[in-house]
Amino acid sequence: MPAEPEAVDLLVHGASTVVTPRGDGPRAGSALAAVEVLERGAVTVRDGEIVAVGPETELRGMYRARRALDAAGGVVIPGFVDAHTHPVFSGTREDEFEMRTAGKSYVEISAAGGGILSSVRGVRESSKEELLAGLLRRLDRFLELGTTTVEAKSGYGLSLADEMKCLEAIDEANRQHPVDLVPTFLGAHDFPAEYRDRRSAYVELLIDEMLPQVAQSGLAEYCDVFTEEHVFGLEDSRRILTRARELGLALRLHVDQLTALGGAELAAELGAHSADHLEYVSDDGISALAAAGVVPVLCPLVPLYLRVEQEVPARRMVGAGLAPALATDFNPGSCFTQSMPEVITWAALRLRFSVEECLTAATLNAAASLGRGASLGSLEAGKRADLVVLDVPNHRFLAYEFGRNPVRAVVKAGAVVLDRSE
Amino acid sequence: MPAEPEAVDLLVHGASTVVTPRGDGPRAGSALAAVEVLERGAVTVRDGEIVAVGPETELRGMYRARRALDAAGGVVIPGFVDAHTHPVFSGTREDEFEMRTAGKSYVEISAAGGGILSSVRGVRESSKEELLAGLLRRLDRFLELGTTTVEAKSGYGLSLADEMKCLEAIDEANRQHPVDLVPTFLGAHDFPAEYRDRRSAYVELLIDEMLPQVAQSGLAEYCDVFTEEHVFGLEDSRRILTRARELGLALRLHVDQLTALGGAELAAELGAHSADHLEYVSDDGISALAAAGVVPVLCPLVPLYLRVEQEVPARRMVGAGLAPALATDFNPGSCFTQSMPEVITWAALRLRFSVEECLTAATLNAAASLGRGASLGSLEAGKRADLVVLDVPNHRFLAYEFGRNPVRAVVKAGAVVLDRSE
Repeated sequence: MPAEPEAVDLLVHGASTVVTPRGDGPRAGSALAAVEVLERGAVTVRDGEIVAVGPETELRGMYRARRALDAAGGVVIPGFVDAHTHPVFSGTREDEFEMRTAGKSYVEISAAGGGILSSVRGVRESSKEELLAGLLRRLDRFLELGTTTVEAKSGYGLSLADEMKCLEAIDEANRQHPVDLVPTFLGAHDFPAEYRDRRSAYVELLIDEMLPQVAQSGLAEYCDVFTEEHVFGLEDSRRILTRARELGLALRLHVDQLTALGGAELAAELGAHSADHLEYVSDDGISALAAAGVVPVLCPLVPLYLRVEQEVPARRMVGAGLAPALATDFNPGSCFTQSMPEVITWAALRLRFSVEECLTAATLNAAASLGRGASLGSLEAGKRADLVVLDVPNHRFLAYEFGRNPVRAVVKAGAVVLDRSE
Repeated sequence: MPAEPEAVDLLVHGASTVVTPRGDGPRAGSALAAVEVLERGAVTVRDGEIVAVGPETELRGMYRARRALDAAGGVVIPGFVDAHTHPVFSGTREDEFEMRTAGKSYVEISAAGGGILSSVRGVRESSKEELLAGLLRRLDRFLELGTTTVEAKSGYGLSLADEMKCLEAIDEANRQHPVDLVPTFLGAHDFPAEYRDRRSAYVELLIDEMLPQVAQSGLAEYCDVFTEEHVFGLEDSRRILTRARELGLALRLHVDQLTALGGAELAAELGAHSADHLEYVSDDGISALAAAGVVPVLCPLVPLYLRVEQEVPARRMVGAGLAPALATDFNPGSCFTQSMPEVITWAALRLRFSVEECLTAATLNAAASLGRGASLGSLEAGKRADLVVLDVPNHRFLAYEFGRNPVRAVVKAGAVVLDRSE
């Protein structure tokens, strides 16, 4: 006599395939492409977690679901994890975009009072409530595009009060919105105008006042620094990040984006979770990241959007055994998109990633870079039920087709939070 | 005593701005950027045509509308006109996309039996009904992305019967679907496999049999040729196009896309309406196009998608007084997107077009390249009421933001055919 079916909250059925990487840690080298493609697969969910992933015919015999979500022939994948974003801002920077397409460089725009500091003015003039309202609208858009977890940096405040205001907005949005936010303190994003002529004093402020109070507040999980000669050089970066680590913050760094400064080596030395951008990383830097197990977070849209030609040596990284993640770097200046599908097409075209590599990099490896590989980033029993139904005939369309949103439905922590077919 | 308000079918109100080029012909040189930005503008429509465009407060006093469409603070622009697409196909080519991202060239893929000829196999194996069904689905997607008129090429049949099947599918779709199609015969897209070793016989077939019957059917408005050394060289192209012109077809050409063959000069010599692609056009070619008033149709996504570095000298063209149009080149091989917003962002980034230049190129100039500048492509009294409401704070977002569909509503020939706010 067959066993009584087990009660679950949700059955995701009718998929052509369920496609997912597997594992708890970042997938490196050739394992980057090793995703599972389960034909006629289904997923069952209970209490916000995945109970089983398997053939639909099997799961239908084993489980009785209170609710069903029909994938209608689409493809089911893990929710995207965007491992690098700057979503707390007020005011947009289309003027800069136009200066750039007219031929001005990033440094010229910054020197003209544009760039990061123009967003700092916007944040300082905004209340926490205004920042929160803008952030919540952007989280809706992340969700529509299939992103269920977002790393969210402060960094447009650049004073203790304004950085705390941003971190508080992130904390409040995290409570109110289904999308999960992982907060990062980026007080070392640039030097605020009032410290332009006394930069070392701002570094001391970061180390002596801002970092201790941010750490004490519990509002940041990570500390990040924009390590670049024209902002925070290697020695300043090392001092700030060492202090952050002493205070219990984990580390992620903006490195080697515009020049070959050796930021990757610093990230490795400090045991950072991630080293981000890396367009100018050296071979030594790649070796150091590999030896230290740092996840490189690649943002392939940024050089395109900044109109610089240098691209990250992504295939060399994979060949060296690194486990890359992909991210939008969503921000109002150097990359104004929230779309991981867009990132994936351009990672395929510019970084020569296969679609399977893209998928792992945009889910499991991104989750691992955020210290969440054991609970997020793949469709496996026991992980949180964050998944996306794509309106595509097969998962390869995720890279092949672009310029439309392929997301039909989103399940976040077991709840159907978006269903376009309804 | 005020005049009685005039009855109209539709009032589009609540816009932050109405943004449109003006005029009947293609806008060249510095006039390319001369769009009108009407704050708090509105549009009235009757019998499928625009009655008036003006300040909302004025229009509300002058007209009484049976229906209202609330732009809800968005931006109203003309419907996009996509001047170069290959939308009649069966089967997709994600395998080729992956070969290319793994490093294979367009010519290698073609030599391996991929490329255009793989789509020819798909079309030949499909019934007209199957082709029509696929085309209608794609037209839905064009409409969702704000495109209201689409140039549609045959060219995956490469026999009289199969080309006619494609043109009949286009004709039927044109009757059934709100999106307007402008049909182009592209029998000279490639040489079919059965003529591989007797290419001149295929040219004779085109000239002696296919073109006369296509012209007689009335199913094609344009004739196009893929002019490139490895397919139809200059002399073959000239013979085919001259014959087409004698038979009453207008001309558009694929030229100078992969090599500097001199196709632009040929397009000018033959008085073509458009010369498309042009990545390798010479200065003489640009001068010839300018002298002949040929519209260059630029497809900035294609080199990016093909992973070739050569880009069209767009700024030089504008400087020389040309009136460019923008297009997707939507097809399953070299550009799998239907999104004009995506084209616009990349035209800004890669071709250094301002957003105003992009808008004119994607509407009025594209309409002019299709011989429809007097009736389409701008929001002016007497033109057909094809318009789009964008969910953006200002029109500059059309280039600045990417990776999402900004279209909130579409009006086609006066009918509200899409309204996401409903």
